[in-house]
Amino acid sequence: MSQLFSYRYLFQFSKEVFLKIGCTEDDAFLATTVLLSADLRGIDSHGIARLGGYVRLWEAQRVNAKPDVKIIHQTPSTATVDGGSGLGLVVAPKAMQIAIDKAKAVGTGWVSVQNSNHFGIAGYHAMMALEHDMIGICMTNASPLVAPTFSVERLLGTNPICVAVPAGSQPAFVADLATTTAANGKLEILQRKNSEAPSGWIQDKEGKPSIDPHELKVGGALLPLGGDREHGSHKGYALGAVVDIFSAILSGANYGPWVPPFPAYVPMPTNMPGKGIGHFFGAMRIDAFRPAEEFKHHMDNWIERFRSAKTVEGFEKVIIPGDPEREMEAERKLGGIPLVGAVVDDLRKLAEKFEIEFRVNS
Amino acid sequence: MSQLFSYRYLFQFSKEVFLKIGCTEDDAFLATTVLLSADLRGIDSHGIARLGGYVRLWEAQRVNAKPDVKIIHQTPSTATVDGGSGLGLVVAPKAMQIAIDKAKAVGTGWVSVQNSNHFGIAGYHAMMALEHDMIGICMTNASPLVAPTFSVERLLGTNPICVAVPAGSQPAFVADLATTTAANGKLEILQRKNSEAPSGWIQDKEGKPSIDPHELKVGGALLPLGGDREHGSHKGYALGAVVDIFSAILSGANYGPWVPPFPAYVPMPTNMPGKGIGHFFGAMRIDAFRPAEEFKHHMDNWIERFRSAKTVEGFEKVIIPGDPEREMEAERKLGGIPLVGAVVDDLRKLAEKFEIEFRVNS
Repeated sequence: MSQLFSYRYLFQFSKEVFLKIGCTEDDAFLATTVLLSADLRGIDSHGIARLGGYVRLWEAQRVNAKPDVKIIHQTPSTATVDGGSGLGLVVAPKAMQIAIDKAKAVGTGWVSVQNSNHFGIAGYHAMMALEHDMIGICMTNASPLVAPTFSVERLLGTNPICVAVPAGSQPAFVADLATTTAANGKLEILQRKNSEAPSGWIQDKEGKPSIDPHELKVGGALLPLGGDREHGSHKGYALGAVVDIFSAILSGANYGPWVPPFPAYVPMPTNMPGKGIGHFFGAMRIDAFRPAEEFKHHMDNWIERFRSAKTVEGFEKVIIPGDPEREMEAERKLGGIPLVGAVVDDLRKLAEKFEIEFRVNS
Repeated sequence: MSQLFSYRYLFQFSKEVFLKIGCTEDDAFLATTVLLSADLRGIDSHGIARLGGYVRLWEAQRVNAKPDVKIIHQTPSTATVDGGSGLGLVVAPKAMQIAIDKAKAVGTGWVSVQNSNHFGIAGYHAMMALEHDMIGICMTNASPLVAPTFSVERLLGTNPICVAVPAGSQPAFVADLATTTAANGKLEILQRKNSEAPSGWIQDKEGKPSIDPHELKVGGALLPLGGDREHGSHKGYALGAVVDIFSAILSGANYGPWVPPFPAYVPMPTNMPGKGIGHFFGAMRIDAFRPAEEFKHHMDNWIERFRSAKTVEGFEKVIIPGDPEREMEAERKLGGIPLVGAVVDDLRKLAEKFEIEFRVNS
């Protein structure tokens, strides 16, 4: 049902599309690198499957292909950035770079971004910190699909948090998680298969528990991590709220139910209180706390102890956050990236629109 | 079954006990203020119920009543603090004050603490930032009671995270949450009542789901927020891990299964890789990102929108994080603090030990 493409081919194709909508050579390269990092890491919902969606946002004049990304307020350890309505794929790594530069100067750097768009996977941006021996932090708000505990209304996005921590001989620890029970991408997979969703993932339009993965199309909602009050959904809701506040109320972006929807055909909310969507980035220099080598020695010890813990029968090992994505990346970089039929069709349409050659199974 | 005490009386009693173990007048006042903030806010498991536990740690020479709390490493926006084996109730607010002072100077302040002990509720420390128009962040690691996803072993504590955000005419947003499905205090309540625990809270010593609240005494474990893999327990585990890393691997405290147990009678782990338990504090000046009045106007708007959302039938309103604790505090400050029999007995024993007068129903 899916077809295999090489990373190199998808890179060339995606970059060509970004050039066609008017990105500079550098920005097209950057946007493609960020976009495809999702496909490589197995987060298919956030990768090239969204390329057509970005183009439609550009057509709707909600994305500026040549944005003026600029600092509008700052202190030695902080900055507020206006993304100039650019692709989040371009705005986010530039903002994360500012956080890293500030951390170099004063130990840590924290950047809140307004007037941006969807930025791909949080993991890419947080992981930029690793090569500098820094801890990287990244979050973003998103279109409202999630109902807080006791709410029928959808007031929050899946609002992910990523924390990337360098280690020594062990690979880095990379926790990248939506603050919902399940990410929207997992629901989309169930929709395609017409399978039932587990309990605790979604509710219907009256707020009753549901296992129908199509519920979101008829007024239902995703649920915060925890699922219901008894299982801690108020905690998932609180975490999603913190992401919203750091990303948008600090920066001057839209928040809560006013976050612009990703699909270009969905009308924009009325009375929007800010500009675009918001992100938040952090970088902490390890040696602002203790020598980096000492820290990495203990991170290795932590990782080795957890990975070798006694497991529940039937499970091979305790997984360190970041393990599955790293293994997937190694596999797909060499072996290729599988795309489902609907995504291949979408790419074919993009090829026609922009008069780019498109080769299936490349 | 419980008896009512005035805040003023419990304050005087607790302060007297801290003086008896050798705290200075200032530290006894501070430790009591922090300890009783838990009782006021309705987090009974972390309040005066633990006073005897702190005394037993002092008797076991694991708590130094006159600690030398000092910065051992710093940059303009960070500090690493050695808590000198002091009461966490004293070390934590001092470390948070350092974070606040750094935020005044360079926009944000971040402090990782080693060589400390249990610090009461995270909420107290994070909320110190509010009066300075700062966002406060606080986390701590804790005795290993939690099994990561697929693990039989208990490798993490309930590792709470608190984020306190100032608002304008609305009360502050205060999210204070253990990274487990349910905090240990809730399990203790079920133990006292001999009631069953909901599914997803605990597992038995083989890692099978259990509803027996006494499971932890025979090798069972608390579960990370999410409960099981299908409901996102790998996310709760990742969040608990981040708390452990920020609190202990950055600072040089003990981490994972090596965190010292709270009960003084439990033997210390062998081969401990650090000193004491670890905490992490953050303070971000609002006006390091945008004018504080603007921010607070939008926080009010956020809070009002969420609180007035349409609710699921049977629920009155969507709760803003911090609402229940603030309402409890107003009630108990005037109406008194109820203590269960076991806690009253423990206080009576402390009174005898230190020859302090103890009056029931004061």
